[in-house]
Amino acid sequence: MSFNKLLKNHCIFKNNRLCLGLDVDNRNLKNTSLDYMGKYIEDIIDATIEICPVYKFNFAFYERHGSKGFFLLENLQSYIGNKAITIADAKRGDIGNSSKYYAEAIFEQFNFDSVTVTPYMGKDSIKPFVEFDKDKGVFILALTSNEGSSDFQKQLIKDSALYKLVVELSNKMNVKNNVGIVVGATNEEHLIDIDKVSRNLPWLMPGIGFQGGNLKKSILTGEKNYLSLINVSRGILQFKNGTIDNIREAVENYTSEIRKIL
Amino acid sequence: MSFNKLLKNHCIFKNNRLCLGLDVDNRNLKNTSLDYMGKYIEDIIDATIEICPVYKFNFAFYERHGSKGFFLLENLQSYIGNKAITIADAKRGDIGNSSKYYAEAIFEQFNFDSVTVTPYMGKDSIKPFVEFDKDKGVFILALTSNEGSSDFQKQLIKDSALYKLVVELSNKMNVKNNVGIVVGATNEEHLIDIDKVSRNLPWLMPGIGFQGGNLKKSILTGEKNYLSLINVSRGILQFKNGTIDNIREAVENYTSEIRKIL
Repeated sequence: MSFNKLLKNHCIFKNNRLCLGLDVDNRNLKNTSLDYMGKYIEDIIDATIEICPVYKFNFAFYERHGSKGFFLLENLQSYIGNKAITIADAKRGDIGNSSKYYAEAIFEQFNFDSVTVTPYMGKDSIKPFVEFDKDKGVFILALTSNEGSSDFQKQLIKDSALYKLVVELSNKMNVKNNVGIVVGATNEEHLIDIDKVSRNLPWLMPGIGFQGGNLKKSILTGEKNYLSLINVSRGILQFKNGTIDNIREAVENYTSEIRKIL
Repeated sequence: MSFNKLLKNHCIFKNNRLCLGLDVDNRNLKNTSLDYMGKYIEDIIDATIEICPVYKFNFAFYERHGSKGFFLLENLQSYIGNKAITIADAKRGDIGNSSKYYAEAIFEQFNFDSVTVTPYMGKDSIKPFVEFDKDKGVFILALTSNEGSSDFQKQLIKDSALYKLVVELSNKMNVKNNVGIVVGATNEEHLIDIDKVSRNLPWLMPGIGFQGGNLKKSILTGEKNYLSLINVSRGILQFKNGTIDNIREAVENYTSEIRKIL
């Protein structure tokens, strides 16, 4: 089965579009050891996996702990197994030969279901990820939710913003139905703009919650295309006191909002 | 001392501009164990560090081995210590908060002297690397040596190629004299073009050797700006039979060519 189909199945089965970003900073925990951090994240997974279809791991939060952080990542991915879809938010991209090794790393060694990639180096830097296997997914950064998205992504190339060219390349690369795009949900005008060019691609949407994106507009626009995945990290992990119960409550709140909109 | 000054000192002291890319694929070795790979790379370092001022580690070749590959990276960086400059060729870049963690990972946890970053997410995605410490360097991808550099990097924004805008941003960010750029050396026309906008930045130049870039033009153009670093990986690691003696010979050959040009 193709990744995009698998992803949709998980979302439909759990009647949800929430992607929980497990971006845990151990310095905010009452015990800063990596063992405690690992156990805490496992508890979060246990408390939410019944309703949460997708988990995203931003590699920065793990790489900060060196090889031990990567060891934790390996364990957490295998802890989730096939009970949910996993995204390695690693923003990889290199010349073809190196991208091939990155694809092997993420998809085989770490066994993630999907990865985020950065498009600056062009098509041949993304190709090894997309061609790896149809059941492994690739989310290409199109428009991100940070201020710096204005520096290059929104600049015009022949009257079309760079991020739109990236969406067009993503359409072309989606031959195996395993390509999606990252669409920062902070600006509705841009959602409309991307909606015009995106063809049957799942949208991974950061920027809801702390960053102020509109949940309803984001879901409805993404769903028209193929599927919206609403990524929330801090908005859930830091809800109230960040206890497991608080996190479960925040996931339930988001899920309930999402279900109302669907 | 600023990173760029430190880098120049190492290059002047060893009278060389060679950056040896330690991109070792264990599947090409007679023993494929990670222990053997680690020992092989240490032997390469021992045989070349007297004349080689800079070593670059493409993370893809290590990440492919999961957490154990990162453990190897930690050991190899510490094996080199301060006898040469190290570049973590990790092509990182994320929203500010995550980039801060990546900077801590690469500069503190792995203790590399410098890192490569991708500019797609804009200034705030690069800032945490540049601001980390003046003695830690940041090479921003401007123009890469692969075919895909035509897809976006060479596209025109208001009559200026995207890669030139990236060079201009790099100039602006070089307040602490710790910013450099990656300049693919495969096309002389583009070297001339980048020379016009680059202000006092070291150029890290892949594309020599296997990819056919011109060594003399690359060195002379980069040196005019601040410093050229000629990155060679396969052209050295796969010289003749890839024995330690062969590698030493290839490094001597490149060094001799470089010294003639300087």
